[in-house]
Amino acid sequence: MARVKIEPLRTFTIEVFTKLGMSEENAVITTDVLLASDRRGIASHGVARLKRYVDGIRAGIMKPDAEPEILKETATTLLVDGQAGMGQVVSVKTMRRVIEKARVSGMAAAVIRNSNHYGIAGYCAMTALEHDLIGFSATNSAPLVVPTFGKDAVLGTNPISVAVPAGKERPFVLDMATSTVPRGKLEVYKRLGKRLPPTWATDKDGNPTGNPGQVLKNLLDRAGGGLLPLGGAGEEDRGYKGFDLAAVVEVLSGGLGLASMGREVYGCKGRPPDVSHFLAALDPGAFGDISDFKKRMDSFIRMVKDVPPAEGAERIWIAGEKEAEAEDRNKTEVDIDEPTYDKLIEIGEGLGVEAAFQGSVKS
Amino acid sequence: MARVKIEPLRTFTIEVFTKLGMSEENAVITTDVLLASDRRGIASHGVARLKRYVDGIRAGIMKPDAEPEILKETATTLLVDGQAGMGQVVSVKTMRRVIEKARVSGMAAAVIRNSNHYGIAGYCAMTALEHDLIGFSATNSAPLVVPTFGKDAVLGTNPISVAVPAGKERPFVLDMATSTVPRGKLEVYKRLGKRLPPTWATDKDGNPTGNPGQVLKNLLDRAGGGLLPLGGAGEEDRGYKGFDLAAVVEVLSGGLGLASMGREVYGCKGRPPDVSHFLAALDPGAFGDISDFKKRMDSFIRMVKDVPPAEGAERIWIAGEKEAEAEDRNKTEVDIDEPTYDKLIEIGEGLGVEAAFQGSVKS
Repeated sequence: MARVKIEPLRTFTIEVFTKLGMSEENAVITTDVLLASDRRGIASHGVARLKRYVDGIRAGIMKPDAEPEILKETATTLLVDGQAGMGQVVSVKTMRRVIEKARVSGMAAAVIRNSNHYGIAGYCAMTALEHDLIGFSATNSAPLVVPTFGKDAVLGTNPISVAVPAGKERPFVLDMATSTVPRGKLEVYKRLGKRLPPTWATDKDGNPTGNPGQVLKNLLDRAGGGLLPLGGAGEEDRGYKGFDLAAVVEVLSGGLGLASMGREVYGCKGRPPDVSHFLAALDPGAFGDISDFKKRMDSFIRMVKDVPPAEGAERIWIAGEKEAEAEDRNKTEVDIDEPTYDKLIEIGEGLGVEAAFQGSVKS
Repeated sequence: MARVKIEPLRTFTIEVFTKLGMSEENAVITTDVLLASDRRGIASHGVARLKRYVDGIRAGIMKPDAEPEILKETATTLLVDGQAGMGQVVSVKTMRRVIEKARVSGMAAAVIRNSNHYGIAGYCAMTALEHDLIGFSATNSAPLVVPTFGKDAVLGTNPISVAVPAGKERPFVLDMATSTVPRGKLEVYKRLGKRLPPTWATDKDGNPTGNPGQVLKNLLDRAGGGLLPLGGAGEEDRGYKGFDLAAVVEVLSGGLGLASMGREVYGCKGRPPDVSHFLAALDPGAFGDISDFKKRMDSFIRMVKDVPPAEGAERIWIAGEKEAEAEDRNKTEVDIDEPTYDKLIEIGEGLGVEAAFQGSVKS
């Protein structure tokens, strides 16, 4: 694990994106979403993804010079075509307009179709916070999750994020996959040679399995099995609720966008993935005084944190609290694991971009 | 189990409510929400609750003659005081206005405070369907659910419902508690002498327990422990996601309403429970053609249902499908269990309301 200064890493990443054909503005947006993830301790969605984006752009799946196009607009709604560009660019730009609309109309929502992976769902939701709005963000994604009683993966890990402003306390920031775990967790377990808990994934016949390598291979080969929804397999633990939440995300994104849904997302090699996002903002001030609302949030957050810990436990966490604490630790530097670090150097060499962050590294 | 004709049961229930001081209009609304639940096979929220409502009205907790008061209103939002009336009355009446607003503005939301139990969350959400809108409904409730790593219950089972219109297929209707199971399931397991699965509830020290009677007693005595959120105990199965979803419901209801939250709901004996609801509607037609949207929904629903079953499983269910099939079976008659049946007779005798449904019973 290397400790890398954010500033030169940011400059490097922006330059990689501009070399690949992105405008400076769009390269900055994409980079800032990636680094926000590293800062919040979510390495799986940070610069570790740069290689995939570079490959995606080179393969023509992500259009670096795309600019989103508004197809339909009202005082409260937006339908946007992402033009197969970067998910971060279209979602951040669209969320700005959603926020403007919600400040005027009390609430607003946008559906984006024909997009790509947009990074952490929480990023757009959190941009609402500085405007004293509640932010929502959700996206469909590659089909990896099996339905309850089903053999094959049909929905994505379809994350949901809800960010709520507070007063003295940190904001409440939910950012969760609707599957028990995302695919990246299986990759980690495979690397560590660890067995999976039975609520995480199924084998090709649809039975819970402890073997992460086999699940990942089956998903790649579309041989059956996949990730389990939140709640796990079968009915007893109510895994169908996790699946139904993933389906709600699918409806709000690909459904409202009249776009690809479920298995159709990333449906054909060589065609754009047609990922869809749903973004929304809601003004607490439309219902009551905003400072009273923030006081209510403070008191609620303290009420939950003050619950006495269960036997053997230490403390209660509020949604987003661990990530906010990581952010505080990572104000100027972030942790980058060695394979990612090496890959960044390699990307830089391939594109002739100087990896100036190398000089700043502490191991 | 008795098979009871709906028409005389409906007449009986309406008369019980009017005898207790409700207007005819409000008695009809409350009754129809209860019977919709029985028809959908959710006996726990049907006329089995009548005794609790009768007791609640007599104890002054529910005001039978209350009419909701609008405190704040914009083109897209409503803040409503339920005046400690029936949750069904204020939510159904408010949802009508939300639907009107959403048809004009593309979307709308209402927060209701100072209310009571409103029955199945799905009822209000489903009223949006006939207007080709997506309906949302969520409510906070009595504190029964423990946070991950926490010893004591602090949030309600806070259900979420999302109803989405389809074309030829049945509508998609999610209606789920954010806990693994609601309290009623523990009562059933206690009655049957069955042990609980480890993802359902904790003992007073915060450890998963199989003993439903002890959990129910501890909740009543506020002695510690309670229901587990969707995903169960600890971090491995991601139970904190279920808890965080319950917290989102709390924020949208009691939070936006500047009302009671978490442990404050049903906080003091003799004071109103101050339950809050969140209702919203979203117009798919604001984003694209409504008939195209319904076709997308049909194709999505079939895609999920057509997933081959896992080993040993028979079929895949869409959210709300089991309930819709029950509704088809229960067009004119519903199943009422014997203790409920006897209680209805007893209520009728106490109030001098003729239980005309008795004549129609098939066992």
